[in-house]
Amino acid sequence: MKKYHLLAPGPTPIPPEVLQALSRPILHHRTPEFEALFERVRRGLARLSETQGDVIVLAASGTGAMEAAVVNLCSPGDLAVVISCGKFGERWADICRAFGVRVLTLDAPYGQSVSPERLEQALRAHGEARVVFATQSETSTGVLEDIESYARLTRSTETLLVVDAVSSFGAVACPMDAWGLDGLVTGSQKGLMCPPGLAFVALSERAWAAADRATCPKHYWDLRTERRWQAKGQAQYTPAVSLLMGLDVAIGLLEREGLAAAHRRHDRLARAARVGAEALGLALFARATPSPAVTSVVAPPGVDGEAVVRAYGEGHNITIAGGQGEMKGRIFRLAHLGYVDDLDLITGLAALERVMASLGQPVEYGTAVAAAQRLFAKEG
Amino acid sequence: MKKYHLLAPGPTPIPPEVLQALSRPILHHRTPEFEALFERVRRGLARLSETQGDVIVLAASGTGAMEAAVVNLCSPGDLAVVISCGKFGERWADICRAFGVRVLTLDAPYGQSVSPERLEQALRAHGEARVVFATQSETSTGVLEDIESYARLTRSTETLLVVDAVSSFGAVACPMDAWGLDGLVTGSQKGLMCPPGLAFVALSERAWAAADRATCPKHYWDLRTERRWQAKGQAQYTPAVSLLMGLDVAIGLLEREGLAAAHRRHDRLARAARVGAEALGLALFARATPSPAVTSVVAPPGVDGEAVVRAYGEGHNITIAGGQGEMKGRIFRLAHLGYVDDLDLITGLAALERVMASLGQPVEYGTAVAAAQRLFAKEG
Repeated sequence: MKKYHLLAPGPTPIPPEVLQALSRPILHHRTPEFEALFERVRRGLARLSETQGDVIVLAASGTGAMEAAVVNLCSPGDLAVVISCGKFGERWADICRAFGVRVLTLDAPYGQSVSPERLEQALRAHGEARVVFATQSETSTGVLEDIESYARLTRSTETLLVVDAVSSFGAVACPMDAWGLDGLVTGSQKGLMCPPGLAFVALSERAWAAADRATCPKHYWDLRTERRWQAKGQAQYTPAVSLLMGLDVAIGLLEREGLAAAHRRHDRLARAARVGAEALGLALFARATPSPAVTSVVAPPGVDGEAVVRAYGEGHNITIAGGQGEMKGRIFRLAHLGYVDDLDLITGLAALERVMASLGQPVEYGTAVAAAQRLFAKEG
Repeated sequence: MKKYHLLAPGPTPIPPEVLQALSRPILHHRTPEFEALFERVRRGLARLSETQGDVIVLAASGTGAMEAAVVNLCSPGDLAVVISCGKFGERWADICRAFGVRVLTLDAPYGQSVSPERLEQALRAHGEARVVFATQSETSTGVLEDIESYARLTRSTETLLVVDAVSSFGAVACPMDAWGLDGLVTGSQKGLMCPPGLAFVALSERAWAAADRATCPKHYWDLRTERRWQAKGQAQYTPAVSLLMGLDVAIGLLEREGLAAAHRRHDRLARAARVGAEALGLALFARATPSPAVTSVVAPPGVDGEAVVRAYGEGHNITIAGGQGEMKGRIFRLAHLGYVDDLDLITGLAALERVMASLGQPVEYGTAVAAAQRLFAKEG
């Protein structure tokens, strides 16, 4: 018997209490019981987003909420600045172009991030840019973008800053109001410890004002109409009720731990993953600005990154992630996101030692685990 | 104690086996296990849609799949014919207009349907119409549209026919290929006995060819791209895995009963609901072409339809539906859709007798129940 472990960057493991809530008898969505649930969830999401503003709940994947942000804030012909460090940054650009929004891309080689100075120059040269779209944790490379510094630049201009925090929400600090973000796009299936199928968009008041003028065509993603419905405890279209029942429980779990404590936990797990991998002589892919949600590791010479993923799965019943696009085979990604603790990380590193040995790499057993153990022990 | 009963037209009651499946540990969506599940579900949906073609699965409400059909088949400036008998027909028109598609509406007074002759005339006068959008079961009024006859008209023309079968799928026959439909839009939360959050679009080959030419902007709803992914057992964006695990079980339950048997069950329940309501002296709202999924009843003089809904809820812990828009207060709607059997319908009618008495109406107890019982007994 080999127990299943999920150490991929989403969907992430679901706590049993949340799984149980999913199987409660369905609530009808036009009842006071549902309205109370919906209100509770929306308030919880606003607290976790650290905003006084409205969070709009959509039945969709995170990409749907990204599209909602674009079509509600932009008009065809507008200029958007996309900060892109990987596949999810590229998705912002794809969505913009699909709706006729012009794109100025600020990109970095995979594994690196875009410096705030580059955004500063771009904003100076293109004051007309309507929105800057960024990705807090670029899951495809394991890079963390410096959202706080980007926001320091945008909030004094007419340009809005919208952040894809789908894979960082709950794992990395991103206080919407304190930093002055204009849009925060999140999803249920990562740090929120829920199944996929719910996505969220929070907008600042100046973003709502921009939504009054944006002319990209929209119906399902019409956030202004949804906002009116959701203010009354309703969703305009049938909401994903079961997932909301799970999310209600998950928000409770996350708030019982405390948002700051959850952020510290993710940071600690990520540092342990990095020292563990390095102790085995492996190189980190996102060296300068690594994400606390996922650790990307360079496949050593002669080893195919996909073989690492397969060896985790076939040898140990653990799902990790490989590289995407041109990173396929070059890296593998170990996530420590959501419902993950110290000993889960040790499990992932113990398996890494065995995986690397099985692929013919020189491994001194216990090295990766010991490095993580020492870090955990030192920090208590 | 009053047990909860859900007799509203969606979400509908979920079988315990499906609820249990929702709470299984999450599967990662880039694994062979998920691919097998996704493939099984898509094949099951194709069998239930009675099509040889592809069914595309979306993480969305049914309205999202309606929008996907519009933006994949139409270009701005195209003419669409919308057959509209209520709120869901009006939604087709709203979506078309949001994307710059011109709309010719064929509507009927609430409670009535649009005759095929009117469509025939419209198609003759507007051969350039790109798509006819219709609603099989117009949930807001309880009317069934004559899809088979509409299809007989469109399939010999260049105009496509796309049907919103969200609230009729599994309850009413709608054999996509045999009738010659070009698009079938469905959802998880009605006859499919699952929670809301999944929506499906099946297209005919000539509809896929139209999708190659349609220029409405799209990204999340890009069905051609999704089709390529889903043919490989994958969804492009993170799918709603837990809901798919529930749907897998629900499809099995529906197929164990048999699709034709499920259609007969819904027809029988609807007829029992109608004789029951009439036995109490109540008038049916959709007299000529009533839906097998939901029975709409006119609130008797002096009784507010919303008071009926409240009395069901407060007095008997049963959720039914009221009227929407200008029908609010004038009608109430008793659904018999999805996981509902003879004795559930008797429960709904027994409560109706008590509700009507509580609202001061003359009621001879047992009348509605007896009428339904006689119908059931006669048919065995």
